[in-house]
Amino acid sequence: MERETALNLVKPHLTDHRYQHTLGVMETAIQLAKLYGADPKKAELAAIFHDYAKFRPKEEMKQIILEQRMDPKLLSFNSELWHAPVGAYLVEKEAGIKDGEILDAIRYHTSGRPSMTLLEKVIYLADYIEPGRQFPGVEDVREMAKENLTDALIASMKNTIVFLLKKNQPVFPDTIETYNHLIINKEN
Amino acid sequence: MERETALNLVKPHLTDHRYQHTLGVMETAIQLAKLYGADPKKAELAAIFHDYAKFRPKEEMKQIILEQRMDPKLLSFNSELWHAPVGAYLVEKEAGIKDGEILDAIRYHTSGRPSMTLLEKVIYLADYIEPGRQFPGVEDVREMAKENLTDALIASMKNTIVFLLKKNQPVFPDTIETYNHLIINKEN
Repeated sequence: MERETALNLVKPHLTDHRYQHTLGVMETAIQLAKLYGADPKKAELAAIFHDYAKFRPKEEMKQIILEQRMDPKLLSFNSELWHAPVGAYLVEKEAGIKDGEILDAIRYHTSGRPSMTLLEKVIYLADYIEPGRQFPGVEDVREMAKENLTDALIASMKNTIVFLLKKNQPVFPDTIETYNHLIINKEN
Repeated sequence: MERETALNLVKPHLTDHRYQHTLGVMETAIQLAKLYGADPKKAELAAIFHDYAKFRPKEEMKQIILEQRMDPKLLSFNSELWHAPVGAYLVEKEAGIKDGEILDAIRYHTSGRPSMTLLEKVIYLADYIEPGRQFPGVEDVREMAKENLTDALIASMKNTIVFLLKKNQPVFPDTIETYNHLIINKEN
């Protein structure tokens, strides 16, 4: 699918702010893909569609999670997590994207998962560091992303977990499993 | 079992430093038990025996984990976690403690677990704040422990998780599950 076609499909589903974020993720994901040897075209499409379901009503997302037998523990955690797996489902159904790698990159862009693919890492990180992002620590992660994809990913996950702990928010278990997996495999 | 008997059983298994720590946990656990309505005698015994297996050789602990079919994922995480479930097993076998509540308080004093009993919370927290403990944040948790057991427990778990993240160490999933469980039930 051409970039323009994809952007035209996504735009009606996003606010202006979120569309600008999506363009930032797209540019960053293409750069990271080229730097680390992922497919830039897949990175482009995954980035364009990563927030496709961001503004769906919670009830609709909940329904899809139940009907499509997605991980039921999602429903016990912050609904911010839902748009990623629901997005993967809707992007296939409504936008006709069939590529499993692209769909997985959308599916795991918020929680991560153990054994993330290169493309999944690229999209997760691009979402975290795109130029529009401004929060404590992001500049350090941007610098790390130029040197080592996994180190930057670990740093972004640590920041996210500490952020949740500081706000007394639950931490989705898959995120900790992803962090543990990255750390344990880095040590070996 | 009388305090003196229990202390005499434990002492040969500990260094002087660890024995002093154990006395501190004992005093703190009794205070917390009285404050929050747990059984002070059970708190005393659980505290005395909580580090019973602390200095067992790793190979022996590993063997016990495998033979007694304890959670196998323990073996993929820091061996610092092992002495708690192994201790519960050995305290029953070697010291003849049969009380399930006391054994569970020993078993879960390092990892925690969702739905911790009052006694388990008391021992976990006493281990964290006993007077010999000196690390950043401990004084805040000591103060919280006078007001609200659960809040103090959450704070101690958050400190532990952040400490592990800062050191790029894996986080045992049960600890996050315990934290999540405490947070989610506190909100409701």
